[in-house]
Amino acid sequence: MKENKYDDDVFFEKYSHMLRSERGLAGAGEWPALEKLLPDFAGKRVLDLGCGYGWHCMYAVRHGASRVLGIDLSEKMLETARRKNSDSRIEYRRAAMEDLDFPAGSFDIVFSSLAFHYVKDFCGLLENIGRFLTPGGDFVFSVEHPVFTAYGSQDWYYDEKGEILHFPVDHYFEEGERQAVFLGEPVTKYHRTLTTYLNGLLQGGFELLGVVEPEPPEDMLDIPGMRDELRRPMMLLVKARKRFYNP
Amino acid sequence: MKENKYDDDVFFEKYSHMLRSERGLAGAGEWPALEKLLPDFAGKRVLDLGCGYGWHCMYAVRHGASRVLGIDLSEKMLETARRKNSDSRIEYRRAAMEDLDFPAGSFDIVFSSLAFHYVKDFCGLLENIGRFLTPGGDFVFSVEHPVFTAYGSQDWYYDEKGEILHFPVDHYFEEGERQAVFLGEPVTKYHRTLTTYLNGLLQGGFELLGVVEPEPPEDMLDIPGMRDELRRPMMLLVKARKRFYNP
Repeated sequence: MKENKYDDDVFFEKYSHMLRSERGLAGAGEWPALEKLLPDFAGKRVLDLGCGYGWHCMYAVRHGASRVLGIDLSEKMLETARRKNSDSRIEYRRAAMEDLDFPAGSFDIVFSSLAFHYVKDFCGLLENIGRFLTPGGDFVFSVEHPVFTAYGSQDWYYDEKGEILHFPVDHYFEEGERQAVFLGEPVTKYHRTLTTYLNGLLQGGFELLGVVEPEPPEDMLDIPGMRDELRRPMMLLVKARKRFYNP
Repeated sequence: MKENKYDDDVFFEKYSHMLRSERGLAGAGEWPALEKLLPDFAGKRVLDLGCGYGWHCMYAVRHGASRVLGIDLSEKMLETARRKNSDSRIEYRRAAMEDLDFPAGSFDIVFSSLAFHYVKDFCGLLENIGRFLTPGGDFVFSVEHPVFTAYGSQDWYYDEKGEILHFPVDHYFEEGERQAVFLGEPVTKYHRTLTTYLNGLLQGGFELLGVVEPEPPEDMLDIPGMRDELRRPMMLLVKARKRFYNP
């Protein structure tokens, strides 16, 4: 079954109070680094996989995208997106990204923010994305970092006083399902190695243009817990481009 | 001062008994994965930075390299290299890789195995390598993985019975010097993020062709401690190519 935790009332309520939900892009610590990786949207057809509240869809049309399709599995997310980030050039559609099918070359840009770690078969998805994208098209995404997903709990390792000692890594090369805790709720995620993400792209007909582990911006370091984000990488941002031919 | 632990008698004696020292390439767990990333050596001019015992230099000439220059800071390493892996097409030269200078385009292939984590200024070195390499030339290297170098001690975190609990990660975004313990001896190494390695290459005029975190081969899993290598990534293998032009 495809994970759809975001339609769980308790989880969705908690999610809606996250800084990134209330403030949008400005509330996301990785946004300044992610924005730098974004391509020129002018006149482009954009697919957003796991669009959530639609902040990135709205960003794309504000920067000239001709058409944006936002896909999400959660009806609650899409309701919020239609309310907060509506535009005639944006269509929000409920679907599991693994089930999507479009004619080859339907999009100039494929984007995804923090959604692929919910997907079981990344390589299968990558194959589809490579087909949906026009040659030379850009593919930009963020995922939870393999360091962050390997152990499973996604929590620090603490001493007996409750102070953070370090972040634990284990079972790194055992890819697959992890039972994580996010906003105090159990969530199923998928751990993959860096090799699977990056070499998967290289062998799947993409050129790598950027690989960035974002650090929290200076002006957010006083937000509680934010300084600890310097202690381990939590996210991985990738910019790739579909090759015109394979080298 | 540039680290030259390998000329320390006690350290060198211990190093000489490592599987990779006694058996050469066949004794290195990452070799099968690294070999797959190597380019065609036929007729090529090769630079090996931190050549150690010269196993890779010999591999290059056996696969057709026309000329190989092996650089190492340790006189003891070079003595062993000249004894074990001597060939008329190989020159072994004592130097700190940071101090090297060659005319632009002097080499077709630059190679380095597990040496860059001893170098303080990777970006400066990368600039030099980009100049030494002919356009379209290949650059293949292995380094200790950022997950392995971040914490500093390079050791597992144990419970009170001495059993491994997990591998600790901390101070990830604080790049720089670490005091590690290798073969029971203190060694200075440098931690860098994955972003610095990979985005450094992308922004330094290289195309990425391969990014691999090697897993121990099946037939080495019974060597004591080897199975634990599946619990965290220890090495990062990278294949890059100097661009003819910047995109």
